[in-house]
Amino acid sequence: MTVAIPQHIALAYDFPVIFTRRVFDPGNPVLADVLARAGEGPHKVGVVLDAGLAAADPTLPARVAAYAAAHSRLLTLVEAPLVVPGGEMAKADFAVVEAVWELTFRAKLCRQSFVLAIGGGAVLDAAGFGAATAHRGVRLLRLPSTVLAQNDAGVGVKNGINYFGRKNYLGTFAPPYAVINDHALLATLPAREIRAGLAEAVKVALVRDALFFTRLQELAPRLGVLDDEALLETDIRCAEAHLQHIAGGGDPFELGSARPLDFGHWAAHALEEATGGALRHGEAVAVGVALDTLYSSRLGLLAPAEAEAVLTLLTDLGLAVWHPALAALDMAGAIEAFREHLGGRLHLCLLAGIGRRLEVHEVDLPRLDAARQDLAARAASACA
Amino acid sequence: MTVAIPQHIALAYDFPVIFTRRVFDPGNPVLADVLARAGEGPHKVGVVLDAGLAAADPTLPARVAAYAAAHSRLLTLVEAPLVVPGGEMAKADFAVVEAVWELTFRAKLCRQSFVLAIGGGAVLDAAGFGAATAHRGVRLLRLPSTVLAQNDAGVGVKNGINYFGRKNYLGTFAPPYAVINDHALLATLPAREIRAGLAEAVKVALVRDALFFTRLQELAPRLGVLDDEALLETDIRCAEAHLQHIAGGGDPFELGSARPLDFGHWAAHALEEATGGALRHGEAVAVGVALDTLYSSRLGLLAPAEAEAVLTLLTDLGLAVWHPALAALDMAGAIEAFREHLGGRLHLCLLAGIGRRLEVHEVDLPRLDAARQDLAARAASACA
Ligand SMILES: NC(=O)c1ccc[n+]([C@@H]2O[C@H](COP(=O)([O-])OP(=O)(O)OC[C@H]3O[C@@H](n4cnc5c(N)ncnc54)[C@H](O)[C@@H]3O)[C@@H](O)[C@H]2O)c1
Ligand SMILES: NC(=O)c1ccc[n+]([C@@H]2O[C@H](COP(=O)([O-])OP(=O)(O)OC[C@H]3O[C@@H](n4cnc5c(N)ncnc54)[C@H](O)[C@@H]3O)[C@@H](O)[C@H]2O)c1
Ligand SMILES: [Zn+2]
Ligand SMILES: [Zn+2]
Repeated sequence: MTVAIPQHIALAYDFPVIFTRRVFDPGNPVLADVLARAGEGPHKVGVVLDAGLAAADPTLPARVAAYAAAHSRLLTLVEAPLVVPGGEMAKADFAVVEAVWELTFRAKLCRQSFVLAIGGGAVLDAAGFGAATAHRGVRLLRLPSTVLAQNDAGVGVKNGINYFGRKNYLGTFAPPYAVINDHALLATLPAREIRAGLAEAVKVALVRDALFFTRLQELAPRLGVLDDEALLETDIRCAEAHLQHIAGGGDPFELGSARPLDFGHWAAHALEEATGGALRHGEAVAVGVALDTLYSSRLGLLAPAEAEAVLTLLTDLGLAVWHPALAALDMAGAIEAFREHLGGRLHLCLLAGIGRRLEVHEVDLPRLDAARQDLAARAASACA
Repeated sequence: MTVAIPQHIALAYDFPVIFTRRVFDPGNPVLADVLARAGEGPHKVGVVLDAGLAAADPTLPARVAAYAAAHSRLLTLVEAPLVVPGGEMAKADFAVVEAVWELTFRAKLCRQSFVLAIGGGAVLDAAGFGAATAHRGVRLLRLPSTVLAQNDAGVGVKNGINYFGRKNYLGTFAPPYAVINDHALLATLPAREIRAGLAEAVKVALVRDALFFTRLQELAPRLGVLDDEALLETDIRCAEAHLQHIAGGGDPFELGSARPLDFGHWAAHALEEATGGALRHGEAVAVGVALDTLYSSRLGLLAPAEAEAVLTLLTDLGLAVWHPALAALDMAGAIEAFREHLGGRLHLCLLAGIGRRLEVHEVDLPRLDAARQDLAARAASACA
């Protein structure tokens, strides 16, 4: 006796990713419009704020409060912003997640209320995990405040914290209610963080958008000096490419093992670990992208001139394509760790052209090592 | 300057809910078939086992091991079953969740591996929360071992644990990979637990399936004495009704506030709390269903004869429709707690007929109290 009932559940999520400037100017309608979409207010909003951002931009809490006062028909701040450690510390343990749970409990936030998280990708990840698990999901408004968070980390559907010493060991897939990228928030961001974020733009252009790559080449002289308009255009286009990949890539919640947006990331993750975080994620991605580009070329998949163009662009953006830690890296071990992280069979994304990705399932270690030597040689000659 | 990119993400989940007997008989193909659907094996499987079930059915771990040995091409048990506390204790803190995280870490379970959870609804909820958050989701196979878990709790898309003293304060929506209901596992379940589970069948019939209600009336004499075939038929039909509601109700992840499957549950939750868990969930649901049925009748929505039929059915199934704790209940407070739990406006499900639900947004406390008096009077006359 066996009876099987097939269950089929279809879900759709819709959320806007909005680019604006000075979101908390009382006259800026963006946040109010987003809340109005949720029906009659006032809606309860609990704010979680990145301490690094708060330190760099000390009037921010007052601006948030002024905005709430000006739009009191739509939103009620349940309390003063909860300031939490910024950067990877936010994800190092349960402290931020627990603080968000306590906030939702204290302020009686329900599944129709909002957590408004303002900060870098790390704070968004930790606060997002907290919001996604309280009441099985309180609505999350993300206000990313770094280039990387505005063009990549903050626009997707993932959250997480580190555990057992592993990046993002715990987390969920949970689409936000809305993402609001306030370009003016980047004014306080150190140049190094801005450049690091640009590495993801190069990455996403390489795996899916040759025209964007060409545009990045055109913009490179202005991006190299962190021209504001060029940065905004790049961020919008980069976010759009990530969004399109998530929506149209056929696997938004990553049930399979393929992860083209992780191009260059196996080495990046290993370098971040090896340097104990001294390399920023985007900086590590620049090296990883350079390595897998040269490896694609060594395998005969990518024309040498195209590989050269990639390395030139990264360099023009002020990104180093080499780091001494790469010389010492156990590449076979790093690839294996990446395979384990994705689960199942190895899926490695390589390039068959600019904007044309290719999945491979094994690694030619001698050729990979040759690619590494190529990078090392370039670095040596650049120093000479 | 404002640019809005609309993101649209469509997702579909497919999973089977299978009723069988003796799932771990090496000749039973159900579990092997489920794993084969995941591609070439062997697949890594970590087993989490309800201690109450393990105590009642001590040969179960050996049967699991024998099955794995017989199907070693398809599955590898990564270690002996992890035995965790059964019942509400499983959800009282992070111990079970953390044990599942440790299991996934120790055994290197990835997003393509499986956690196989065997037990009551509480163990499934806690183990499911652990599995859903490790690597942002390791595949979950549920093997519910109580009537309530097989006909309701184990077939849905939710998991959770209690926190801040609140039921299911933390959790996620996470569809399982498959649900396998082994009817033979119920052999060791105490009669009281079996009867409690039947309350959910009455509930779901009332809110969406008049034919099922009629069938329950026909089966009542056999269900009253816990006839095995009658129970199996009831469990299948009840699970099916829950599955259909989740898939077809328009809101599988409960983004809105309406919850027809929670008919009778505002009082049930309050009674469970008031009695410190002395009332089983299903027993509390029976009282809550009786109350809201009489309240529907007092409001003139439901014919008195229909209300009478509901109370008769519950009684015939061996379920009490009154509990002294109901006399003392702060009903206005309990309704408010329920509203808060759902979020937003109050949504209360009532009956406009057998199988016909109706949403209301406010409560007529005097009439509700009259319904309570009706129940009390019935109980008093039954004792006389
Ligand atoms: N969820 C995802 O899909 C996803 C994708 C990619 C990366 N990430 C995660 O994102 C994190 C990295 O995020 P990040 O690059 O945004 O850096 P970050 O969050 O680590 O922040 C870097 C530093 O900048 C500070 N800061 C933030 N905004 C500032 C501002 N406007 N002015 C001054 N200082 C500011 C922070 O306090 C911190 O010290 C990593 O943990 C990574 O795992 C997540
Ligand atoms: N996730 C959902 O959608 C959902 C829906 C409804 C209820 N629930 C949850 O389910 C839980 C109640 O589940 P339940 O009614 O299955 O009870 P339970 O999980 O509390 O188990 C009751 C007792 O039976 C024991 N047991 C389990 N199987 C046994 C067996 N075959 N033989 C002997 N003993 C056995 C357990 O060890 C426990 O002591 C509650 O925590 C409730 O919140 C969840
Ligand atoms: Zn990245
Ligand atoms: Zn119930």
